[in-house]
Amino acid sequence: MNKISVKELQRIVGSVQRVDSSLEGQARAYLDTLAKPLGSLGRLEDLAVKMFVASGGRPPQSDPARIYTIAGDHGVNEEDISYSPQEVTRQMVINFLAGGAGINVLARTSGVELVVVDAGCKGGPFPEHPGLIQRKIACGTENISKGPAMDEECCLRAVSLGLELADQAHEQGIKVLGTGEMGVSNTTPSTALYCAFFDLDPAEVTGPGGGIDAAGVVRKTEVVRRALAVNAEVVRSADPLAILTALGGYEIAALAGLIIGGAKNKQMVCIDGFIATAAYAAAAKICPAVGGYCVLSHASAEPGYAKVIEALGRRPLLHLDMRLGEGSGAALSMFMLRAAANIYNEMATFEDAGVAPGG
Amino acid sequence: MNKISVKELQRIVGSVQRVDSSLEGQARAYLDTLAKPLGSLGRLEDLAVKMFVASGGRPPQSDPARIYTIAGDHGVNEEDISYSPQEVTRQMVINFLAGGAGINVLARTSGVELVVVDAGCKGGPFPEHPGLIQRKIACGTENISKGPAMDEECCLRAVSLGLELADQAHEQGIKVLGTGEMGVSNTTPSTALYCAFFDLDPAEVTGPGGGIDAAGVVRKTEVVRRALAVNAEVVRSADPLAILTALGGYEIAALAGLIIGGAKNKQMVCIDGFIATAAYAAAAKICPAVGGYCVLSHASAEPGYAKVIEALGRRPLLHLDMRLGEGSGAALSMFMLRAAANIYNEMATFEDAGVAPGG
Repeated sequence: MNKISVKELQRIVGSVQRVDSSLEGQARAYLDTLAKPLGSLGRLEDLAVKMFVASGGRPPQSDPARIYTIAGDHGVNEEDISYSPQEVTRQMVINFLAGGAGINVLARTSGVELVVVDAGCKGGPFPEHPGLIQRKIACGTENISKGPAMDEECCLRAVSLGLELADQAHEQGIKVLGTGEMGVSNTTPSTALYCAFFDLDPAEVTGPGGGIDAAGVVRKTEVVRRALAVNAEVVRSADPLAILTALGGYEIAALAGLIIGGAKNKQMVCIDGFIATAAYAAAAKICPAVGGYCVLSHASAEPGYAKVIEALGRRPLLHLDMRLGEGSGAALSMFMLRAAANIYNEMATFEDAGVAPGG
Repeated sequence: MNKISVKELQRIVGSVQRVDSSLEGQARAYLDTLAKPLGSLGRLEDLAVKMFVASGGRPPQSDPARIYTIAGDHGVNEEDISYSPQEVTRQMVINFLAGGAGINVLARTSGVELVVVDAGCKGGPFPEHPGLIQRKIACGTENISKGPAMDEECCLRAVSLGLELADQAHEQGIKVLGTGEMGVSNTTPSTALYCAFFDLDPAEVTGPGGGIDAAGVVRKTEVVRRALAVNAEVVRSADPLAILTALGGYEIAALAGLIIGGAKNKQMVCIDGFIATAAYAAAAKICPAVGGYCVLSHASAEPGYAKVIEALGRRPLLHLDMRLGEGSGAALSMFMLRAAANIYNEMATFEDAGVAPGG
């Protein structure tokens, strides 16, 4: 398995080009020649512009697209903060491979490929399967309420895995990446990451995740508080890689790598919900230039999400009260990227169509 | 061309069955057996439930789906309240048939059929085209700021046309209908209809439509006010068919018929934006039972839309700042119906997947 040094990561981060927003005007000007009231396709136009700019000024390309749903377990699960038993991580990976999970259905509906990755599930290897990449770094993280989730080497291995997946996808011609995850308890490290990155109070961000009750949310809030306290030195350092190492998870760190790698390759990256957005927050802290390549797919129904979005200063695309994870929101937003790209590439101009522009 | 009497319309309206909302629990109970946190697919689950209930308790069917984009012109155009010249209605119909308009692109992207209908465009017939149904009732409406838009017979012809389209689609196996429209100036009659149906002030609902400036909005507001004044007796009568006749348009009345017909046939109907929602409002006033079969596809960016939604007490599905019309929002929401139906029909249960339900 590849390892990467902090220095190598810094070099890769340095190679991610900030998008050239001066290209925006060119895309808008073209969209304004299309036979429709100016700006009347709203956020589809914004998406087309974003794709044009991210590619360095080429007509948007939405396909082929691929979601990586990356799985990992969490030591903090022992704190009784999750609705599902920990075995569900493994059971759901098997469900993904059998094609019966929510993400399978939505990826198929959107015409998007799904690849499942074991970055850190508990237990031994899974049976071999063409849709599964087995790159287990460890059998779950350590309990963040008692110490760091990982050590730096393991976190770098996870980030490196994500970078490698992005490169592989790029070589295979994938234009849009989706970020999915599976990991019982992973709203807890995500919440801790948000608190650390954006100086939020755990009570503002902690929610029911998979479905714990009010007493569970109180317990979970305290667990997040303890995680921040026991890792206080790292939090104070404001070093994003160190924070990801102390409070993250294998799937979260791998997704952060995938996001950075996608941006390096000028691929669009559709960020899924509450957990994937924590990976995005980590990626953006490590490498602010990723923002120009990423679309926040949907507003998670996890109650803390609104605070997170405010802190990120971004606006999600869809508002469907979803909180499944797995990449489900990314799958839907990838369809919207296709709609946006097709608008840009297939609509007739006023001139072509012989339509009077008005005004 | 078919004519229908008020009595026949009443008989059809009476045959529309109110959905049996006691079936909701059955659909929710089934969704809760699927391997995902309870309710975690949010509005996709709501859509699946709605489709299950609308069909009388059958697994949701999203395909095949068809959008009818119905065109008509408006006498009120002479009041200088539109951004585009009136010829654009005809030019856009031709653009639809050539496949280059926004709705063509989005219908293709969503895998939905598009049928264009001339219900009342100015000028002579269009060249024949397999994608066009030519059923012109008149060459545009009369100027609503000077009198009624149509007479009752013409309005009934338009409603009848919509009923007929729904029946034809039903016979051809179409499960989901989309409502699209084209008609320069048609935000004006739509605004007048909203004011009449919901007792709103024109200043609350009038907006820029295709893109008129602030002075134009002021002018348009006064035109709507005059339309309500000159047709005050009809507005006071609160007779929805009479209001549709006095303030509507051929495409709007035909869409109202399509909505009632779809509901009669237990088809789902995806309502597009500002103008199609005026047709929905008329249909729902004439036949309140239609609500159980209709999805408000998206929140139009036309500023008055928020007031309208409040008056309707409904929640739109997508929020993409779109204001194109043509059926563009319906095309996108039809994809969401497919996603919802596939979730219901294709996801594995906890039991099938061997996943522990938790709790």
